[in-house]
Amino acid sequence: MATSAGTTTPRYAAQRALTREAFPVLTEVTTRWADNDMFGHLNNAVYYQLFDTAINGWLAGVTGEDPVRARVIGVVAESRCVFFGEVGFPDPVTVGLRLARLGRTSVTYELGVFGVPGAGIAAFGEWTHVYVDRSSRVPTEPSPAHRAAFEGILARADEVVA
Amino acid sequence: MATSAGTTTPRYAAQRALTREAFPVLTEVTTRWADNDMFGHLNNAVYYQLFDTAINGWLAGVTGEDPVRARVIGVVAESRCVFFGEVGFPDPVTVGLRLARLGRTSVTYELGVFGVPGAGIAAFGEWTHVYVDRSSRVPTEPSPAHRAAFEGILARADEVVA
Amino acid sequence: MATSAGTTTPRYAAQRALTREAFPVLTEVTTRWADNDMFGHLNNAVYYQLFDTAINGWLAGVTGEDPVRARVIGVVAESRCVFFGEVGFPDPVTVGLRLARLGRTSVTYELGVFGVPGAGIAAFGEWTHVYVDRSSRVPTEPSPAHRAAFEGILARADEVVA
Amino acid sequence: MATSAGTTTPRYAAQRALTREAFPVLTEVTTRWADNDMFGHLNNAVYYQLFDTAINGWLAGVTGEDPVRARVIGVVAESRCVFFGEVGFPDPVTVGLRLARLGRTSVTYELGVFGVPGAGIAAFGEWTHVYVDRSSRVPTEPSPAHRAAFEGILARADEVVA
Repeated sequence: MATSAGTTTPRYAAQRALTREAFPVLTEVTTRWADNDMFGHLNNAVYYQLFDTAINGWLAGVTGEDPVRARVIGVVAESRCVFFGEVGFPDPVTVGLRLARLGRTSVTYELGVFGVPGAGIAAFGEWTHVYVDRSSRVPTEPSPAHRAAFEGILARADEVVA
Repeated sequence: MATSAGTTTPRYAAQRALTREAFPVLTEVTTRWADNDMFGHLNNAVYYQLFDTAINGWLAGVTGEDPVRARVIGVVAESRCVFFGEVGFPDPVTVGLRLARLGRTSVTYELGVFGVPGAGIAAFGEWTHVYVDRSSRVPTEPSPAHRAAFEGILARADEVVA
Repeated sequence: MATSAGTTTPRYAAQRALTREAFPVLTEVTTRWADNDMFGHLNNAVYYQLFDTAINGWLAGVTGEDPVRARVIGVVAESRCVFFGEVGFPDPVTVGLRLARLGRTSVTYELGVFGVPGAGIAAFGEWTHVYVDRSSRVPTEPSPAHRAAFEGILARADEVVA
Repeated sequence: MATSAGTTTPRYAAQRALTREAFPVLTEVTTRWADNDMFGHLNNAVYYQLFDTAINGWLAGVTGEDPVRARVIGVVAESRCVFFGEVGFPDPVTVGLRLARLGRTSVTYELGVFGVPGAGIAAFGEWTHVYVDRSSRVPTEPSPAHRAAFEGILARADEVVA
């Protein structure tokens, strides 16, 4: 569970103002009975499951690649979440996804979690994947299909922001 | 899963150098078959489950309070994790905990995840709880028992750091 | 993960032959990256999360009751799952639900998990809830709204089977 | 969450009477904040995570084999759990394990979940693994190391029962 209390700086204010329209990729996710914690709302770790799902589900759909068989894989270098509201089972949630930074061997996403229609953003996330060779763990450029996916979302992000 | 790749700034260097001794509270946690993801190592969201467990387990043990019945509860305002190494089932992990900041109605922890003895820190986390009234969700001072727990850990942190 | 191997008795044959049409209630559930285990398919414990979600989501929708505030709650007395096939992220699944037995203070459901359209049943489950007083844990009749939900599904089950 | 209500037949009575001593393999498992559901006790699906963990942790320790690299893998054909009591975070639990049946390409375990010392069995489980070739999914004899593990536990079970 999470609350907006105490997150009142300008940086947070900008994140808290984000709407679904700020994100070029939107993924609908169903929640589960077990997601709710003892306070009756989504356990905070579940938000990271949702981020992972939105990112990898989008990549699987766009690239058609199977991460279990890929030679180069994206591993999480850092993740972060700020909680502004509460969502919970049985309501479905929408996860928004956009690119914040695209490097040679890494990519940073920004994500938003939205509950019932009309409600504001419930949580804002940041997530960095570093691409590494599956065996050696040496940072490596992502596959051409992943690169194309990133460039496609960047183009759509321009449309969204403009 | 997580990797250290790309996290090479001074701030990360200081976090990566942390050892078990930097944390006044250490909690042993067993891992589970289901924790490992398709890459064979702990799924990144599980680290946040471990942080939650270390914090709330320590608080339950020290204060004897039951969060399900408490009038004032700590809800997560923000969390973050940087991944430096890999841990996984069947190996147990140790979670280190210390206080970074104690406010009137909030508390920020720093956490470290350690795998097999002798290995360096696998992940470094930050976690802010805001205390709120269970019904109104208005920020509220934590109970005297929680306040005493925080002051106790601060005192032990001084011993650890000194 | 699960397999059909070794489950070849008549009882299993009847369960394996079930299709979506055998279940009066169907719930669409999205899967998650973290659901897949080291073998690349849904971890077996996740099926029970799906059962719980299908049952409680259906009850919440039909009755409008909030289990966190209810005086009489349904607790799991027994659950069981037979695995016939494999499903996994990123594919969504459909969970079918029907009543097998309705007692004075208990209810037994049968459930089916279905993956991609056209594929057979991936798993068959059985699940018994006993209704108890929240405080005393003494078996107690469910609320009139829950009773009505059960009778409604029984009526629809007749249509389905007929 | 689970309750003993309604499980009063002789078969259940025998299972409910089981103590730690009935199981030749005992595994200590820590619980997590996120394990507790909205009723304040371990979510029922978590019990299956614990079963999986006890079985695979024991096998990994005894055989030294890595399931991610094994050519023959054990996949779940069926699982079942009867709930007699309640356990929950922050208390650790002990999972007992014994063999009920050893076939040529399958093995069935019986498991018990125990909470605080002195309390009776909280849950009784049954679990069947079928060994299959990783690629073809054809039932296959387990590795000699796994076979030796099963025979070792059978011998210890005799001592326990005798």
